Amino acid sequence: MKRIFNPKSIALIGASDELKTVGLGLAKNILKGKDLRKIYFVNLRDDEILGENCYDTISDVKGKVDLAVIAVPGPIVKKVVLECCAKKVGGIIIISAGFKEAGNEKEEIEIRDIVRKYKIPLIGPNCLGILNPKVNLNASFASIMPKVGNIAFLSQSGALLDVVIDRNELGFSKIVSYGNEADLDESDFINYLKTDTETKVIALYFEGIKDGRKFMRIASEVSKVKPIVAIKSGRSNKGKEAAATHTGSLAGDYSVYQAAMKQSGVILVDTLEELFDTALTLSTLPMCENGIGIITNGGGVGVLTVDYCAEMGIEIPDLTKTTISLLEKNKAMARVVNKSNPLDLLGDALSDRYAAGVESLLKQKDINGLIVISTPQLMTEHEKSAKIIVELRNKYPMKPIVCCFLGGHSVASAIKYLEANGVPNYTDVKRAVKSINGLVKR
Amino acid sequence: MKRIFNPKSIALIGASDELKTVGLGLAKNILKGKDLRKIYFVNLRDDEILGENCYDTISDVKGKVDLAVIAVPGPIVKKVVLECCAKKVGGIIIISAGFKEAGNEKEEIEIRDIVRKYKIPLIGPNCLGILNPKVNLNASFASIMPKVGNIAFLSQSGALLDVVIDRNELGFSKIVSYGNEADLDESDFINYLKTDTETKVIALYFEGIKDGRKFMRIASEVSKVKPIVAIKSGRSNKGKEAAATHTGSLAGDYSVYQAAMKQSGVILVDTLEELFDTALTLSTLPMCENGIGIITNGGGVGVLTVDYCAEMGIEIPDLTKTTISLLEKNKAMARVVNKSNPLDLLGDALSDRYAAGVESLLKQKDINGLIVISTPQLMTEHEKSAKIIVELRNKYPMKPIVCCFLGGHSVASAIKYLEANGVPNYTDVKRAVKSINGLVKR
Repeated sequence: MKRIFNPKSIALIGASDELKTVGLGLAKNILKGKDLRKIYFVNLRDDEILGENCYDTISDVKGKVDLAVIAVPGPIVKKVVLECCAKKVGGIIIISAGFKEAGNEKEEIEIRDIVRKYKIPLIGPNCLGILNPKVNLNASFASIMPKVGNIAFLSQSGALLDVVIDRNELGFSKIVSYGNEADLDESDFINYLKTDTETKVIALYFEGIKDGRKFMRIASEVSKVKPIVAIKSGRSNKGKEAAATHTGSLAGDYSVYQAAMKQSGVILVDTLEELFDTALTLSTLPMCENGIGIITNGGGVGVLTVDYCAEMGIEIPDLTKTTISLLEKNKAMARVVNKSNPLDLLGDALSDRYAAGVESLLKQKDINGLIVISTPQLMTEHEKSAKIIVELRNKYPMKPIVCCFLGGHSVASAIKYLEANGVPNYTDVKRAVKSINGLVKR
Repeated sequence: MKRIFNPKSIALIGASDELKTVGLGLAKNILKGKDLRKIYFVNLRDDEILGENCYDTISDVKGKVDLAVIAVPGPIVKKVVLECCAKKVGGIIIISAGFKEAGNEKEEIEIRDIVRKYKIPLIGPNCLGILNPKVNLNASFASIMPKVGNIAFLSQSGALLDVVIDRNELGFSKIVSYGNEADLDESDFINYLKTDTETKVIALYFEGIKDGRKFMRIASEVSKVKPIVAIKSGRSNKGKEAAATHTGSLAGDYSVYQAAMKQSGVILVDTLEELFDTALTLSTLPMCENGIGIITNGGGVGVLTVDYCAEMGIEIPDLTKTTISLLEKNKAMARVVNKSNPLDLLGDALSDRYAAGVESLLKQKDINGLIVISTPQLMTEHEKSAKIIVELRNKYPMKPIVCCFLGGHSVASAIKYLEANGVPNYTDVKRAVKSINGLVKR
């Protein structure tokens, strides 16, 4: 699979210069890596595309081809696959649709049998392609190159890749849209990513998993080494029907998937927002033992946070005598009568009270991470508090801190500062709790 | 209560010109309504505050006082309340804390008994105050005046008001932080709002409800006339403890509250984000019968949407022969083989396909509302689609449309256009489904 993700040469079969075609989108994207690899455009009609020479068939290409990307119409895909196999390419991606998802499973199986006979790995059909930002590889029709990072994102759905790339919040090591998974499936990619040093977290969107035993075997092993966070769609009966016409998946019973994911150590989430939030937290913050501190300047929001923690089994340790006496010694805390976890700094808290609260709680042994909440009250010093939080995160790097600076324009620049310094901020306390939940070792 | 929300005169007892005090914050906010009402500052120490004459006690004020706002230290609150009663003010708000939430229930009861004897309604103690944007009334220490709108927001927590006001997304008819509810409680406000013509939706944050029977009787009546959406904190044992020290509430068993809310026709939500989302949807969109259409250019996101609908009991009617034939006749739909609900317009959908899909589904009788999803794919025309959606919403105003334009910079201006034209957009499909769920009559 290394040849697929780090190709020295790519052939695009079905390259095009017609406006608003997939063939043109792919050609443009692939060309961006021109300095790093040989690129061959293949298309019977044209002699030149985007200023590059164009071959009639892949057989006409003289050099070695590591990765063949196929974007020709469905009916001629099989013929092109045969040519790619004859050429002994390192791997094949079939972007083209019109197979199992359209009721045409027969041809998909034929293609799979061909590539397996030749021992050439195949991604797709009916997919968006792959990206490897670090080596400037965009063999997909997503129009933007995402940031380099340590999240590997595997998706049965192509549109989701576009969404996550367009958000531009996450950094990626590898992105794979694997579509109908005729040959390579999610488990194969997860297995490959286990030893991929660029990848710290694996995020997965799937509708159905064909080989459940294989998945559980591989996921159980890999999740011991790096976290896997996943979302499944096609849970309801109506959703399963919709999934069948989307990627041809048999979606299966959700409760079975829930049990299997739990057993395999995979974090199964409910929404896309959670998938992205959890991936971000896992990619940037350290894992921790159970036991979280909550600091807030708004009592009600603190109470809600406690509720969500209880719901997810996150422990909120009582403050020890040492911590309480630390807080008592601090002048800024004088007005705070109730020194407990959650620690309500009260509405008139200035940043010095945040400093006292955050550091005292971080010092307590069984508080392994913090949720810090700030609401925009009359005297709140969001920006100063944000700076203090970043400093204390640097001082106690092994304890993850997530923030929940709530509001709009008053908190915007503080949030920007937090995020720029690797402290995630969430617009809802439940999102913050879910994110830290992903970090708690169990 | 009319005198409280539309006062012709306000006295602020405990007005101050010391920096970063509640007394100064309140004084500044109340002064903003100077052109609309008489304002009296009361404070023993100063002769003048912010250029206004200052009275020693409220008894020294010559004119009638509709609303007395008390922000003096806890220990002298009772004395001031007695003076206000002697002055026969129209209503009292006690901002000051230090009562039931601090273990001092005795004095709170004494104060309640005093105002009840004089038949003067009391809000608080331990609250942030009230706002009525339409008459430029900010008798609170929230620093910004929110937009005028038709949402009434009642909150036991003051900090939450700051959050929602700072977000500046919602428009309000009335905002009330009612704190310890020594006298007036959530039910009294809900009852008042029933006939308040400025209010279309009532949103409520609460920790505990003291008089459950009263609440159920009033909420059942009011929810028939206007929707009530509520969030409760203090659900877990640990959360209940935290609530007790916050507003002195006995939080009670959550399952009992869930049942009571359901029976009273109150929409109970899980997160603050949902509270704000649902309030916004209810305040701007029409209610509808069950039966929703889903339109998407990304199959996977469509499948997820179906799952969330199933989870919440939202029906996804099959397309009728008439609708299918309408779609078949439309050229833009030629490539879309699978004409069903959810309607997957496919990744290469241009805005004409959105136009065809949205109008055809809106025409179907048992499709009573729409969720329209757009993901940023190679050729997606977000802005054009947004314009089409707004036009069709205008053409079919009785069927609510919520959008889910997913992504980042590619969709930003389309989202801005949608929101400016009263079509809510959500950053996660589950949020969109939950919002439309609030509109479905049951």
